[in-house]
Amino acid sequence: MQELSKNKKEKTTPRIGILGGGQLGRMLLQEAANYPVETYVLENDDECPAAHLCHHFTKGDIKDFDTVYQFGKGLDAITIEIENVNVEALEKLEAEAVKIFPRPSVLHIIKDKILQKQFYKQHQVPTADYRITKDLSALQKSESFLPAVHKLSTGGYDGRGVQVINTKDDIPKGFDAPAVLEKWVSVQKEIAQIVAINEKGESALYPPVEMLFDPQLNLLDYQLCPADINEQTLWKVEAIALSVARNFASPGIFAVEMLIDKNGDVLVNETAPRVHNSGHHTIEANYCSQFDMLWRIMLGYPLGNTEPIFPSIMVNIIGAEGFDGDVIYQGLEEVLAIEDAFVHLYGKKQTRPGRKMGHVTILSKEKQELFHQSIRVKKTLLPISRHPSIPR
Amino acid sequence: MQELSKNKKEKTTPRIGILGGGQLGRMLLQEAANYPVETYVLENDDECPAAHLCHHFTKGDIKDFDTVYQFGKGLDAITIEIENVNVEALEKLEAEAVKIFPRPSVLHIIKDKILQKQFYKQHQVPTADYRITKDLSALQKSESFLPAVHKLSTGGYDGRGVQVINTKDDIPKGFDAPAVLEKWVSVQKEIAQIVAINEKGESALYPPVEMLFDPQLNLLDYQLCPADINEQTLWKVEAIALSVARNFASPGIFAVEMLIDKNGDVLVNETAPRVHNSGHHTIEANYCSQFDMLWRIMLGYPLGNTEPIFPSIMVNIIGAEGFDGDVIYQGLEEVLAIEDAFVHLYGKKQTRPGRKMGHVTILSKEKQELFHQSIRVKKTLLPISRHPSIPR
Repeated sequence: MQELSKNKKEKTTPRIGILGGGQLGRMLLQEAANYPVETYVLENDDECPAAHLCHHFTKGDIKDFDTVYQFGKGLDAITIEIENVNVEALEKLEAEAVKIFPRPSVLHIIKDKILQKQFYKQHQVPTADYRITKDLSALQKSESFLPAVHKLSTGGYDGRGVQVINTKDDIPKGFDAPAVLEKWVSVQKEIAQIVAINEKGESALYPPVEMLFDPQLNLLDYQLCPADINEQTLWKVEAIALSVARNFASPGIFAVEMLIDKNGDVLVNETAPRVHNSGHHTIEANYCSQFDMLWRIMLGYPLGNTEPIFPSIMVNIIGAEGFDGDVIYQGLEEVLAIEDAFVHLYGKKQTRPGRKMGHVTILSKEKQELFHQSIRVKKTLLPISRHPSIPR
Repeated sequence: MQELSKNKKEKTTPRIGILGGGQLGRMLLQEAANYPVETYVLENDDECPAAHLCHHFTKGDIKDFDTVYQFGKGLDAITIEIENVNVEALEKLEAEAVKIFPRPSVLHIIKDKILQKQFYKQHQVPTADYRITKDLSALQKSESFLPAVHKLSTGGYDGRGVQVINTKDDIPKGFDAPAVLEKWVSVQKEIAQIVAINEKGESALYPPVEMLFDPQLNLLDYQLCPADINEQTLWKVEAIALSVARNFASPGIFAVEMLIDKNGDVLVNETAPRVHNSGHHTIEANYCSQFDMLWRIMLGYPLGNTEPIFPSIMVNIIGAEGFDGDVIYQGLEEVLAIEDAFVHLYGKKQTRPGRKMGHVTILSKEKQELFHQSIRVKKTLLPISRHPSIPR
C-alpha cells in the first residue's frame, strides 16, 4: 500500500532536468516555482546561478555522454540552456522515452553552422548567401565573395568564432577549419522573434524585438520591444520566424534572429532553440514570459498569452572593462530607484569584462522614457571589482 | 591572502534567513533570485514549498529557542513568514547585531491579541471597542457587551481561535483562556493595505485592496485592487495604515487589515508584520511586488515603486471540501488558457479542505473582466485528490 502510493506520487509530479545552470536556468527555475514540478540541474560549477534553485543539483559536465545520460535517465523531460551539450546522450534518452525540448535532431543542426545554413536553404528560408570553407586555403579562393563574415562551423559562442573578412588582407584572420563564409549584409535592423511550439504542434509568437549590438563584444546591448518596423516587414518577419520554428519539427522555444537589409529584405541569421537573451523582457513586459512558456510546453499545459502588457527596453548588464574579480555593482542604488525599471542580477560571484551579470527591463508606454531610462541604466549600473585588473 | 579574500566575499554577499518555508517563503525566494544574496530557510518539513529554493535549508522547529538561535547566529538578517516563531531567540540575535525584520518587539505585540489591541489604543489607532476576558467566567460577565467576537490572545491562526458570540447562548463556545472580546462591527467592507518601512524610516504604501471572506473557513477568497472606496475613505485608510506601521518602530512589510463600518468609519482589525496573502497580486499588478520590496528593505536598497500596472483580482486556490491526499489540480488547463490570468501553485504535495494550495491573479483594466474571470477561476480550479476522503 505504501509502495503503491509512492509510485502514484512519482507519476503525478513531473521530473524535469535542465542542462546548464547559468542565468537562463536561474530564470527558468524562478518560474518553475509556479507549477508542481520537481527540478534537476546539471552543471560543472556548484556555485552557478541556478544551483540553489532546483530540487536536485548534479555537478557534472553537460558535454560528457555518460554524465548527461546518467543525469537524464528516469527524468520525464530535459531542456537545455546552452546548445553545447552532449547530443548523443540526449538521442539515447529520447529513444528511451525521455522527452527532450528541443529534440536532439534540432540541436544536431543548430550546433553546426554549416548544417544550420543548409537547413535554411533546404526549407526555402531566406538567409544571406554563403559558401562552405573547409579550411583557410578554401577561404583564400573566395576573394570574389568578399566582403563576408567567416563563421566557424562548431564551437563558436558569444562573438567567438565569428570574423569579419572585408578584403583579402583579412583572410589570415579567418578560420583554418570547417566554416561558413557568409556574404556581407548591409544591415538596416537586427530583429529577433521568439516562437513557442507545443507537442501538438500549436504555436504562439512573441512580438519581435529590435536589437543593437556592442560592436566590440558582439553582445546584446539594448533591445526594444516591439521592434520599430512597418506592418509589411512585420508580416515577413513573423512568417519567416514561424516557418523556421515549424520546420525544426520539435516542441520548444525558438529565438529566431533575423537581419533586415537596406532593401527591406528579411534574412535569417541564426536560431537558438531555447529560452534566449532576446526574451528576457517577457518576464515583465508580456502576460506569459518565455520561461513560463517553456514550462507550459514541457508540462503539457496550454500555450500562454504572448501579448505585451507595455512596450519595453531591455539592457544587458555586462562586466565592465578593466575589472576581474569579486563583483561589486556600482550604481545599483540609483538604478533600483528608477520607477519603471526591473532589475535582475544573476548572482555570479565573479565579474570579468563582457560577462553577462544581469539585465534591466524598463516598461513604459512612452518611447522617450524607454530610451532615456535604458541609456541611464547602461551608464550607471556597472559590475566592477574592488581592484582594477592588471592590463593584459 | 586566501583568507583575506574569503572574508571579503563573506562581507559582500549578505546572508539572510527566513523562518518558515511555506508559500510566502517560496515567493520571497523567487524574488531573491534577482539580487546577490545568500538565502537560508528554517522549517520542520524538508518537502515544504520553499525548501529547494534557498542556498541552505535547515530542518528544525521555528518555535524552539536553540534551533532558531543556532540558525540565526552568523546571518546578517532574518525575516519571518509566520508570526508563530521563537521571539526570545530573535531578541538574543538582535542583541548580537543580527537584523530582524520585523523587530522582535513587533512580534511580541502582534503574537498576543491583547497586547495588539492595547497597542492600537495606546497609539490612538481606531479599532473596535473591546474587553479583555481572562477566562470563560469573565466572558459570562460580559453579556451586555454582546454581540461580539471572542479572539484567543495567543495561538489563533487562519480562523482558528476566533469565535462569534452573538447572544449569551453562544458564551459556552468562547475561550476559557485569556482573550479579547471585541464589539461586533457592522462591516461594510474589509480592506487591507500593505505598508513598507525601511531602516531609515522611509515608507511606501501599496494601494489598498478590498477583500471578501469565505464565512465558513474565514479564508480570503477574492481580493480586488484597488479597493472600491471613495477618496475620503481612501485618505482615512492610508493615514491609519501608515500610522500603525510607523508606530511599530521597525523596518519591514506591514499588512494592515481594516474594517469599514456602516457609518464609513475605519477600524483596524489586525496587522501582519510580514509579506501577506493580501499582497500576492503585487507580483504582477505592481511595479515592485511585496516580496521584492522586503528584499529591498533587508538589503538596504531604495524602496520600490508601489504604483499599480493594472487593476487586479486575486483568488486563493484552496483545497476542495471532501478531499485529503496527493493533490490533483482539477481544471488547471482551462485556467491556464485564460489570457489575463497568472497562476501560482505552491507545490504542496497534499491537499486538504481549506488548505492554501495556490493563487491566481487576473489583470485587466475592465472591472467586468476581473469579476468574470476570477469567479470562473474559483469555480474551475479545484485542488482535489484521487479518492474522496472518508467523511468525518
